[in-house]
Amino acid sequence: MAEQTHADAVLETIATTRSIRRYRYEDVPSADLNKILWTATRAPSGTNRQPFRFLVLRNGPKAKQARRILGIAFRNGWQTKCSSEGWTIDTSTRGSTRRERMLQAMQQYVDEFERVPVVVLALYQRYRPIDAMEGASMYPACQNLMLAARALGYGACFSGWHRGVATELSLLFELPQDVEIALTITLGKPQGKHGPVRRRPIGDLVFEEGWEKSAPWVQDPPGTRFTGGGPPEARS
Amino acid sequence: MAEQTHADAVLETIATTRSIRRYRYEDVPSADLNKILWTATRAPSGTNRQPFRFLVLRNGPKAKQARRILGIAFRNGWQTKCSSEGWTIDTSTRGSTRRERMLQAMQQYVDEFERVPVVVLALYQRYRPIDAMEGASMYPACQNLMLAARALGYGACFSGWHRGVATELSLLFELPQDVEIALTITLGKPQGKHGPVRRRPIGDLVFEEGWEKSAPWVQDPPGTRFTGGGPPEARS
Repeated sequence: MAEQTHADAVLETIATTRSIRRYRYEDVPSADLNKILWTATRAPSGTNRQPFRFLVLRNGPKAKQARRILGIAFRNGWQTKCSSEGWTIDTSTRGSTRRERMLQAMQQYVDEFERVPVVVLALYQRYRPIDAMEGASMYPACQNLMLAARALGYGACFSGWHRGVATELSLLFELPQDVEIALTITLGKPQGKHGPVRRRPIGDLVFEEGWEKSAPWVQDPPGTRFTGGGPPEARS
Repeated sequence: MAEQTHADAVLETIATTRSIRRYRYEDVPSADLNKILWTATRAPSGTNRQPFRFLVLRNGPKAKQARRILGIAFRNGWQTKCSSEGWTIDTSTRGSTRRERMLQAMQQYVDEFERVPVVVLALYQRYRPIDAMEGASMYPACQNLMLAARALGYGACFSGWHRGVATELSLLFELPQDVEIALTITLGKPQGKHGPVRRRPIGDLVFEEGWEKSAPWVQDPPGTRFTGGGPPEARS
């Protein structure tokens, strides 16, 4: 019984960890950061090489420079995305649809990027030629970070909008040639709350015996919320 | 207090999830598989596109063919690794060092691959040009799978040894051109048990303000076990 409760608690935590983009602007205590980062680094990696590194940006002088660089990049990234998708955002009133509220949340996220409590650059130290599968030794640690944050009452979001300024950041932090920024992760206490995420129906995602042959034993639990997969529910 | 206990349970589960390669040869009930896969697919992905798919191989005819193909590939992969590293494995006696026992466990894993209770091919459906960062939309779901399995009393292991036979497998399962096998995941009830993993000291992995500048607030909790990073503690 206790075992069951424990398992359910873990499964529920994983299943209700959503990307958090609106933060309460308060510092994250070092003890909590330590727990989050330590737990992140327990992830597996090929031959246990641990090519993942985490560069934490709080309020130091370089952190402030990096936030400015990233803030511009995030706003550019979002603007480009909005233009290409034809989205317009009215921030004068609260959106009346889920989609409008999401677009507003994204706009606020990039507008206030410099104030995000903690920014973590997830770094990958490459040890063999670039390969589509190398992320198997990097992103499990990032997911651990997100889940550990959520367990401790924080929220995180993954983003790739550092791409356009990766060279500037590499110079700022004197990253070696073989080190790449794999993700920008923002972290803090959520303004809103965690909760069930929206995904495609499980039958679209889990197959047995062949491509697109839905596993006959899969089913979404009651109350599951769905998405078609299009709008900016997560990072871009 | 209850909140604290819940958080600790989640953190401990993550931190004690190790790669499990020795399984009890019994089927995984469909209800548990469903929970594991459903939880896996709650992971984040870019713009919530969910490019991850999971092809579950149990005892169907194609699953059996795939197991044979993969079994050969895994044994070849391991043999190549042993040759290149100069490892020899004596399976006639139980290893007297941790390293010997790890090598033996790896040998047993590949020798008995066809008997692994469940094999999951984690598939990535590519929607833009190949990119080093694309795994950010794939491997968080794989890590969720591993953690959900562990929460329910199972164990999993990630491997990339399908590489040499990816074309054969793609033909067998009629995978579209844009779909790639991102990981082979084995899954079942562990023969041994989960427990603390070994990693580098946290100061080697978590920095603040600059490359290789250890964050002053990080510390490994008492009892942490360490590794230099070399031997085959994880997949290869």
